[in-house]
Amino acid sequence: MKLHEFAAAPNARRVAIFLAEKGIEIETVQVDLRAGEHKSPEYTAFNPLQDVPALELDDGSCLNQVNAICHYLDEIYPDNPLYGRTPLERAQAESWNHFVQMNGLMAVAEAFRNSTPGFKDRALAGPHQYAQIPELATRGLTRLNDFFADMNTHFASNEFVLGDYFSVVDITGFMTTDFAGWVKVSIPEDYTHLQRWFDQMSARPSIKG
Amino acid sequence: MKLHEFAAAPNARRVAIFLAEKGIEIETVQVDLRAGEHKSPEYTAFNPLQDVPALELDDGSCLNQVNAICHYLDEIYPDNPLYGRTPLERAQAESWNHFVQMNGLMAVAEAFRNSTPGFKDRALAGPHQYAQIPELATRGLTRLNDFFADMNTHFASNEFVLGDYFSVVDITGFMTTDFAGWVKVSIPEDYTHLQRWFDQMSARPSIKG
Repeated sequence: MKLHEFAAAPNARRVAIFLAEKGIEIETVQVDLRAGEHKSPEYTAFNPLQDVPALELDDGSCLNQVNAICHYLDEIYPDNPLYGRTPLERAQAESWNHFVQMNGLMAVAEAFRNSTPGFKDRALAGPHQYAQIPELATRGLTRLNDFFADMNTHFASNEFVLGDYFSVVDITGFMTTDFAGWVKVSIPEDYTHLQRWFDQMSARPSIKG
Repeated sequence: MKLHEFAAAPNARRVAIFLAEKGIEIETVQVDLRAGEHKSPEYTAFNPLQDVPALELDDGSCLNQVNAICHYLDEIYPDNPLYGRTPLERAQAESWNHFVQMNGLMAVAEAFRNSTPGFKDRALAGPHQYAQIPELATRGLTRLNDFFADMNTHFASNEFVLGDYFSVVDITGFMTTDFAGWVKVSIPEDYTHLQRWFDQMSARPSIKG
């Protein structure tokens, strides 16, 4: 197995943190997104979606999408499960992960990709070109604030995103909050519960490095 | 367990088809979205996300998000697994399901919710209000056509979405293609491979009823 990634990309960092939490080491290949290496004919032949992270399996085939990769690794390396320990916990992890991705991570991505000059006509990742929509950038910032407010309420009575244990959803949430810096948004001062959780996550060896 | 649903809603239909394929019967409660029952204080107390489908567990708690619900049922009723039979198949199902949801289902949802007068200020499901963005409706239609083109290419050499067996991703793909009718889009005439797959899906007892 080889992991194609780009260290600065939020979705690639999610896998890197996941691997560190699990204590797994995998050979990595850097795909320089800034140099457009993900659009090269060679990379496209391997991964038609032209994104990272992408896991190259031993037969040369490609597994893409961050949750598919992490979930696969969680199954084949079952120690310290990060996607839940029971069928119900696994379902709750899937539900929460979806919530954080759709309402948090995507809000930041919409704000970032629809406002950054370098992403002109690349408002969405992947092989198709789509023009930026400035109103979507603005809505992304509004949604991000709503997400922070919702999570602040959640963390008032929960140590982690999912009950009483660190899970993959904490990684998704951490990366969302960190990624918000790309659109110059940090946790509002009065969101003390969200800040407490974020500080706790930032101190983990898998994250602070 | 009780499933809160609304028979006409695409995400609720995904679960209904899934249950029929698995041969599982669960008590259902209709939540009339047209009458706004999902916004009632009672339903909101049960499911703060105000959406369907939502699975009420025996302790009264709520599991929401269509994949979380279906994946949970696939685990506790293991006959005829629809999320894959091995760790790799499960990962591929997750990856493909994400692809179809993000590029197909969401494209239709964006086109529909951002152009339909009844969804003014409800461009996204959930408790927060967001104004419609007409450009997003237009982009949704473009993305839908790109998605159909990509899937047509895929079905030129694949019977199902995922290799050689019917999986949950076929359900997601079927509902996407059916839901496209809500924005008056049908499969373009020259997408014969996509049409062949869609006809095959439509003939399944779980779908034709």
